[in-house]
Amino acid sequence: MLLLSWVDGADGSEFPVQNLPFGVFSHTLSGRSPRVGVAIGESVLDMQALLAEGLIDHCACAAVFAEATLNAFMAQPRAQWLAVRAALTQLLARDGADPALRESAELRRRCLVPRAEVAMHLPAAIGDYTDFYSSREHATNVGVMFRGKDNALQPNWLHLPVGYHGRASSVVVSGTPVVRPKGQLQLDKADASKGTEHAPCRLLDFELEMGFFVGGPANRLGAPLEMDEAEDRIFGFVLCNDWSARDVQKFEYVPLGPFGAKNFATSISPWVVMAEALLPFRCATSAGSQAEPVPLPYLRDPNYSSYDVQLEVAITPAGGDRATVVTTSNYRHMYWTAPQQLVHHSVTGCDMRPADLLASGTISGADASAYGSLLELCWQGTREVGPLCDGSTRKFLRDGDTVSMRGTCLHSSGYTLGFGECAGQYAYARVNLLADEQRGLSEMGQVPRLDWSDAAGERHSLTQSLAILELLHEAASAPGRSLLPLGPALAAKDQGSDAGRSLGREAIAKGLAAAEKLAAANRDERFCVGSHSSVADLCVVPQLYNARRFEVDLQPYPRLRAVEAHAATLPYFQAAHPDAQPDAAKA
Amino acid sequence: MLLLSWVDGADGSEFPVQNLPFGVFSHTLSGRSPRVGVAIGESVLDMQALLAEGLIDHCACAAVFAEATLNAFMAQPRAQWLAVRAALTQLLARDGADPALRESAELRRRCLVPRAEVAMHLPAAIGDYTDFYSSREHATNVGVMFRGKDNALQPNWLHLPVGYHGRASSVVVSGTPVVRPKGQLQLDKADASKGTEHAPCRLLDFELEMGFFVGGPANRLGAPLEMDEAEDRIFGFVLCNDWSARDVQKFEYVPLGPFGAKNFATSISPWVVMAEALLPFRCATSAGSQAEPVPLPYLRDPNYSSYDVQLEVAITPAGGDRATVVTTSNYRHMYWTAPQQLVHHSVTGCDMRPADLLASGTISGADASAYGSLLELCWQGTREVGPLCDGSTRKFLRDGDTVSMRGTCLHSSGYTLGFGECAGQYAYARVNLLADEQRGLSEMGQVPRLDWSDAAGERHSLTQSLAILELLHEAASAPGRSLLPLGPALAAKDQGSDAGRSLGREAIAKGLAAAEKLAAANRDERFCVGSHSSVADLCVVPQLYNARRFEVDLQPYPRLRAVEAHAATLPYFQAAHPDAQPDAAKA
Repeated sequence: MLLLSWVDGADGSEFPVQNLPFGVFSHTLSGRSPRVGVAIGESVLDMQALLAEGLIDHCACAAVFAEATLNAFMAQPRAQWLAVRAALTQLLARDGADPALRESAELRRRCLVPRAEVAMHLPAAIGDYTDFYSSREHATNVGVMFRGKDNALQPNWLHLPVGYHGRASSVVVSGTPVVRPKGQLQLDKADASKGTEHAPCRLLDFELEMGFFVGGPANRLGAPLEMDEAEDRIFGFVLCNDWSARDVQKFEYVPLGPFGAKNFATSISPWVVMAEALLPFRCATSAGSQAEPVPLPYLRDPNYSSYDVQLEVAITPAGGDRATVVTTSNYRHMYWTAPQQLVHHSVTGCDMRPADLLASGTISGADASAYGSLLELCWQGTREVGPLCDGSTRKFLRDGDTVSMRGTCLHSSGYTLGFGECAGQYAYARVNLLADEQRGLSEMGQVPRLDWSDAAGERHSLTQSLAILELLHEAASAPGRSLLPLGPALAAKDQGSDAGRSLGREAIAKGLAAAEKLAAANRDERFCVGSHSSVADLCVVPQLYNARRFEVDLQPYPRLRAVEAHAATLPYFQAAHPDAQPDAAKA
Repeated sequence: MLLLSWVDGADGSEFPVQNLPFGVFSHTLSGRSPRVGVAIGESVLDMQALLAEGLIDHCACAAVFAEATLNAFMAQPRAQWLAVRAALTQLLARDGADPALRESAELRRRCLVPRAEVAMHLPAAIGDYTDFYSSREHATNVGVMFRGKDNALQPNWLHLPVGYHGRASSVVVSGTPVVRPKGQLQLDKADASKGTEHAPCRLLDFELEMGFFVGGPANRLGAPLEMDEAEDRIFGFVLCNDWSARDVQKFEYVPLGPFGAKNFATSISPWVVMAEALLPFRCATSAGSQAEPVPLPYLRDPNYSSYDVQLEVAITPAGGDRATVVTTSNYRHMYWTAPQQLVHHSVTGCDMRPADLLASGTISGADASAYGSLLELCWQGTREVGPLCDGSTRKFLRDGDTVSMRGTCLHSSGYTLGFGECAGQYAYARVNLLADEQRGLSEMGQVPRLDWSDAAGERHSLTQSLAILELLHEAASAPGRSLLPLGPALAAKDQGSDAGRSLGREAIAKGLAAAEKLAAANRDERFCVGSHSSVADLCVVPQLYNARRFEVDLQPYPRLRAVEAHAATLPYFQAAHPDAQPDAAKA
């Protein structure tokens, strides 16, 4: 019989009671510190609140939920993960044995938070991040492109899961903007000896991957993990976009592997789906139920299998009104599985610590519609991918593109299990005011300046802040999310630009007073106008920053301070904050 | 005028007042928790004690020394590092402005610990570890071996510092034993397509490197570091042995770089020498005062230079009575420097966090006596390295070899600055009692069993614990460090073996009583006999472990418990502890 939940909207959502993925969230309204949560329907169960209310204190490791990351929970033995999962099921299932939460509106209010009100963080402090290369179809595609059909797979590929150590610091949670990287690009694509230029990457790509978090106590250095321990050391899975700068990689990667081409960002979905939740979706791999050649004994997995997770990648262009799916793949297209990756990782004695993240490598199916990267989808630039919603096509990513990955498991009994979204938007390359870059950008040496190409490929540029905002409004706003609030738009613009031109306290105060009036008339305290960030917020937040520099008294502007406080929780405001700029320390 | 210190033995040592390197130590006698210390002569200055006594509280960041690692101190801006260094100089210099410590015997007793009584730990929790490949001589040597003289350097090598992400978890402090790794080795050296076996590495090598810890606040993801910021982000330097399994690497590393061949261990020296202390030793690199071709602007360092650090590697064979220097190199043999490595690491936007460790790559000089690895010294197996003290020679490392690295700066004014030792002994491959390995080792299925080759290459084996200990005594003890105490050796052996055969409490208690008497007669409370670990300690510690299983009252044996407590601080006892074995959880 299908297990159901009493939580509104859980049944039929991607987070039904069968899923119960763990993540780390902060509640943007209450301002409470980041903490562990479990997704259920449209809500998040606050594990710290559950702990405070004594609702999980019978679980042996309940205290680990006092932490702000999942590290301590992941470090527990698998039996403890399952005990907590079982306790949550009893709390959340319609006929669960523990009615405490179900029957108390007050406890529900304290422990359940609407997902729409939370910001997600990285689920764990990742010790080491490793990326594998374990889809045979992907490795073959890349091999055919670079070495031809007869030598597509390297001699080692069928003998061990090839992988490399990645960069842990630059793993980011879904939603974090990704800055287009600069690196050394060959002047002549076909001849590395012709030298390089330091330029923004032109061949930006996504890589559709899944990753898993290691769990359980670390093995001792020098004592490799055995295959029969592997399942106890796999906590759970996330979606993973291993963003890649193909042209940077081309020049740098022989002989020590990819470096700057990968370490600028790796995005993961925020909810960690426990391996336990995926058990009902076990299935044969792309090699069937046994690989040929049979691997060496240490890599033989008696349960050799993958999971039937349907994967898709969609792109929304800057200004586009919807995402277009550009590929559909499946985690079943693995040749080397998670347990094999883990065991091989430690074969020479490497210690695998809880919260290490191991990613699968690009997951491609046999069919051209199931390739996991643009490199394969456009077949090295020889095919167009798309069209996207605005009619444009892609070979590689353009500035402003949002890449969004999703994973779904459909159970025959009728429930669906999802991973949430793994999304990231390519931001424009940063400009450092102190370096030469600024002079290079404009003959007048002015910033900001926005360069962009229209649909016809024509290049344009703008150097006035509000003109740029208006253009972004035209080009980048999603429906219902306009940057320019329709009613009071002009008022907001006038305040912003008036105050911006004046350097004295009085002028600033005058502008703030008008803005305060505007904000006070808005029902949603988080924003100046409406219920999302608009150009008004974009002007007000920097004005408050300036006001402090001029020692303006901010007491009279409570609503503006509320807007500012909320803005501080939003990644795009964080990224745009003056202190976050490369020249901040010296300015 | 030469600055001198009032601390006994500081002047003329490798840790004079000009050095003041930071590390993390624990005082084995007092049992105090690990904490930050500064090496001065034969002593360690306890920074937590200094903080408690109010001797550095005028330094803005003094509170960071309440931590058990250097991470918080490294995260401070460079000005704070220098302020603390200046304060320490005033406390420790003979004519220093702050006489507090110098003039109070009581404060000296509280704040200075003999180095002989401390165990060193990793200086920091390393976020990410990266290894470069920046000595032109080394890259050329390897290139000539594998690709011939005409294509020795890859096309990218002169344009950017080639590097790869390493494994942070397996970076260990000097003194940690290194277990010979097992991995996939080609059955036919010349033909990868012939398949592999899962076997202990046969081509174990050291790599002579230096590494530096990143300091200062992290740059934001997407905002590359500029060259003029680099020096503010380099906290200090250590010696680094990037142990390498050449035969594992050979099969695995194309196309994604070294993986299991490197992630089994990287040893570093425990004392971090601040970049500031190295300033007087700045010198031209192997490329002179400017590289040709001139690198792209982002990599141009106006202070392009390295440091004159004399480096040497010595090997002591199992049973050898002294270390033999096998190579002498110098950190000046760098082509790409630390600031260039750091800036290139972040060129695509990678965020560099305090306590990230970046290693130089093998440092080889032009002369064959200055090669930084056995691969080069034996020129791919075509030359013998040595002889070592026992007359044996090497191509690659043998079990039981201790590899020790040292670095020294000689100042013209007469002082010497050193890095301490970066040492590690290759332990024998571990045996997992639960896997097939045990049956493979002995027809009788017995463990322990020791296989070894004598100087003539003859193979022997032993399966009795005490016989093995006696052999190790013959083969592996250094003079003055005999495992078998000369006087009471037989008594200790009898107690050990008697008690070991009996399973009852009484028999255990009888053996412990005799051992307690032996230990009580010893002046040094840390050991049963003499002032170092002997076979008596090796027998007593496991007997106490057994005694607890049999619920024997240990109150009557205070001296044995003291021996046990000290043993728990020693890496070889830690590594041999039953709970540390791979089969521990299931046994």
